[in-house]
Amino acid sequence: MAVGHSTFPADMPEIAGFRIGVAEAGIKKPGRRDLVVMALDAGSRLAGTFTRNAFCAAPVQVAREHLKASVAGPRYLVVNTGNANAGTGPQGLQDAYATCEQFAEIAGCDSRAVLPFSTGVIGEPLPMERLIAALPTAFETLGHSDWSAAAHGIMTTDTRPKGSWREVVLSNGETVTIAGVSKGSGMICPNMATMLGYVATDADLAIEQSALDAMLQRVVVTSFNSITVDSDTSTNDACMLAVTGQGSRVEGDDLLAFEVALGDVMLELAQAIIRDGEGATKFVTVEVSEARSLEEARAVGFTVAHSPLVKTALYASDANWGRILAAVGRAPLEDLDVDGVAITLNGISIVEQGGRAASYTEAAGSKAMAEEELVIAIHLGRGQQKARIWTSDLSHDYVTINADYRS
Amino acid sequence: MAVGHSTFPADMPEIAGFRIGVAEAGIKKPGRRDLVVMALDAGSRLAGTFTRNAFCAAPVQVAREHLKASVAGPRYLVVNTGNANAGTGPQGLQDAYATCEQFAEIAGCDSRAVLPFSTGVIGEPLPMERLIAALPTAFETLGHSDWSAAAHGIMTTDTRPKGSWREVVLSNGETVTIAGVSKGSGMICPNMATMLGYVATDADLAIEQSALDAMLQRVVVTSFNSITVDSDTSTNDACMLAVTGQGSRVEGDDLLAFEVALGDVMLELAQAIIRDGEGATKFVTVEVSEARSLEEARAVGFTVAHSPLVKTALYASDANWGRILAAVGRAPLEDLDVDGVAITLNGISIVEQGGRAASYTEAAGSKAMAEEELVIAIHLGRGQQKARIWTSDLSHDYVTINADYRS
Repeated sequence: MAVGHSTFPADMPEIAGFRIGVAEAGIKKPGRRDLVVMALDAGSRLAGTFTRNAFCAAPVQVAREHLKASVAGPRYLVVNTGNANAGTGPQGLQDAYATCEQFAEIAGCDSRAVLPFSTGVIGEPLPMERLIAALPTAFETLGHSDWSAAAHGIMTTDTRPKGSWREVVLSNGETVTIAGVSKGSGMICPNMATMLGYVATDADLAIEQSALDAMLQRVVVTSFNSITVDSDTSTNDACMLAVTGQGSRVEGDDLLAFEVALGDVMLELAQAIIRDGEGATKFVTVEVSEARSLEEARAVGFTVAHSPLVKTALYASDANWGRILAAVGRAPLEDLDVDGVAITLNGISIVEQGGRAASYTEAAGSKAMAEEELVIAIHLGRGQQKARIWTSDLSHDYVTINADYRS
Repeated sequence: MAVGHSTFPADMPEIAGFRIGVAEAGIKKPGRRDLVVMALDAGSRLAGTFTRNAFCAAPVQVAREHLKASVAGPRYLVVNTGNANAGTGPQGLQDAYATCEQFAEIAGCDSRAVLPFSTGVIGEPLPMERLIAALPTAFETLGHSDWSAAAHGIMTTDTRPKGSWREVVLSNGETVTIAGVSKGSGMICPNMATMLGYVATDADLAIEQSALDAMLQRVVVTSFNSITVDSDTSTNDACMLAVTGQGSRVEGDDLLAFEVALGDVMLELAQAIIRDGEGATKFVTVEVSEARSLEEARAVGFTVAHSPLVKTALYASDANWGRILAAVGRAPLEDLDVDGVAITLNGISIVEQGGRAASYTEAAGSKAMAEEELVIAIHLGRGQQKARIWTSDLSHDYVTINADYRS
C-alpha cells in the first residue's frame, strides 16, 4: 500500500558528469536489476552521511573509510539490494572490500575510489559469486543518468521508485541542476543519517569540502532525519551527494538558493519514503511549535509519530485525539504545563488549554481524520522553536509485510 | 488473544481489614460491574505511585492530592472503568472531586479519605449521573475481599482478570499475606508508575510511611516499570499498596522477606499484563547483562522491546535476529563496541562478537522463535549491570483492537 499517487518525476534530468549503470545479479531472486552503479567523472566531489546505528553494516564502514581515504576523488558508488551485508562480521567486511577491488579492476581505478552500499535482509552473507559476476554488466551499461533504473534498482519493500529534482536559476541567469533518488519503506527512523539517498548536481560549488559536508548535514536534518515509519533506525542508512562541478559556478548568494533547492529535493525524497511507508494509508505531518528548543520540538514530534496507538487510530480514521494528547504527555520534556498546550488536526481545534476544545465536535474530528493527508499541529505554549516530523500510520499491512518479509 | 492459560489464582486470600464492593454503573455499556470500591479499615496505611505522563488524568491528580492530604488516613479507593476522565480539563477535575464527595457522604467520612481512579477512553466526560447512582450499591456490597470481582471490574481491553498473592512466613512462625490485582493490556509502558494495580496486605509493617513509599518504589521499578506492550505511557497509571496492619508485626529481617514477596506479587501482576497484552501471542523476556549501568541495561531492553520490527518478527516466529541486532545498535548508548556483543534466543547463540554466531543455524533459530515464551538475552560485554524487561509481540490483533477500540 502507499499513500496517494506515485510522485516519481517523468522528466528526471541528466546531470553532466554523472552516469548510471544497472545489472541483474540475482542476489535475492533472479530476474531483477538489483545492482546499480553510479559513476562520477574525475574531478567530482562527494559528501556523505551515514547511519549512527552502532551495528552499522560492513559496506557503511567501507564507504565511510573510502570517502575519507580517496585522494584521487571518489568515482563509483556500487549499490546492491536484496542483502544488507550487516551483522556479517569479518566476512562481511572482507566482502565489501572485495566488491570494491573487483569493480576497481574492471573500471581501472584505485579500489578506494569505489564506495559500496547494500540494502536488504540483515545477517546473511552476501552472495559474492553472483554479485561479482554482474559487475562487468553494470560497468558496461554506464550511460546517461538513468534515474528511473537507479530508483527501481535500489528498492526493497518499496512499492514505488522515488525521485526528485530542481533547477536552480543563478543570479547571472545560468542554471544548475540537482537530481536524486531514494529508497526506503520500513526500518525507517534515520538518526543523523538517512535511508539510501543519492543526489547529484552539476553545480560547480565555490565552497570547501568541509562547507559542502556541513550543507549536506543541514539539509538532512530537516528532511531524511525528520521522518519515521516505525522508529527503527537501519544499519545501512546512507545519503550521498555527488557534485560533478561540470555546470555553472555557484557562489555568493547563489549558494543559499542552491541549498534551498537541495533541501527541497531531499525533503521530497524523504516524504516519498513516508508515502511509501510499509502498509501506509496516511501521510501525516506532525508540526510542533512554541517549543523551548529545536530538540524539544523534535522529541515531541517523534514521540507522537512513533506512538503505536496514535498510528492505529490514524489507520482507523478514528478521531481518538486522547492518544495524541497522551503521547505529548509522555514526551521527554521538563515541566510541561499542559494548560498551555493546544492541538489542531487539519486546522480543526481539538485540544485547548490541555483539554478538549470547546468548539470540538466528533463529526468535525472524524471528517478531518478521514483525510489521506493529515497535519497534526501541536502548540506547546512555552517557546519559539518549531520542527516538523513526517510519518505514516500503522496498518494491518505493516504487520503482514514485516511478519512475512523474510519468507 | 493472550499468551498461555489464565493465571488468576483460584485461592486468592482474604486480607483482614480490606473489603471490596462492586456495582453496575453502565459507564460505557450496561450490564457490567464497572465500578469497584476497595475499603481499608481505619488505621490502615496506603502507599501509591502514579503515572509520569504530563497529561495525567483528573482522578490521578485528585488521588495524589488526597493521598497526601488525608490526615485521618485513606479509607476508600473508588475505581471506574469505561472512561479515563483524562484530557477533560476543569470539568474532569470537578467530576473527580464530586465522586469523592458523593461517596464520602454515603460512607460517612472525610472526602479526602476517598481516592478516585478511572480507566478507559481518554477525552470524554465522565457520565456522572450514572456513576453517582451506582455508588450506594458499591458501598453496600462491601464485604469480604472479593478479588475476582475487583479484577474483573477494572478490566478494559483486558481479556483476563489478573491476580497474585503470597504468604510470608515470619521468623517467629507467624504469617502475613499479600494479595493484589491489576489491569492493563494496551497503552502499556509505565514510567515510574504502573497501570492500575491494587495490592493489600494485613502485615503490621514496622516502618515509617517514607520507608513504605520507598519500598513500593523499589518493587515497582523491577515489576510494573519493566514491562511494555506498545511503548505508550498511559495518562491514568496508578499502583496502590494498602497496609491494614491487622496481621502480625513484620520487623527486622522479616521486612526483607516481605519486600521479596511483595516484589513477587507485583511482578506476577505485571507479567500478567504482558501475557494479556493487546493481540499478544508471545511472552518475551529481554534480559540485558554486562551493561555499564542499570539505566543503560534498561534502555537497551526497552529499545528492543519497543521495536516494531522485532515485535512483528516475534509474531511471525521468524528468527530474523538481524532486527534484534539493529535495535541494540540504535539504543542510546555511548561508544558501544559491537564486537563485545553476544545475543542468545532461548539459549541458542545467535550473535557472537557482533556478528552471526558460528554455531547458529536457521533451523535452531526457527525452533527457538516458535516457542510461546521467549528469552532474548543480550550481553553487552562492557560492565556488570543487568535488567529484565518483559514485552509481547505486535500482531494483526493489536492493530485490529486499536483500530476498533472506540467504535
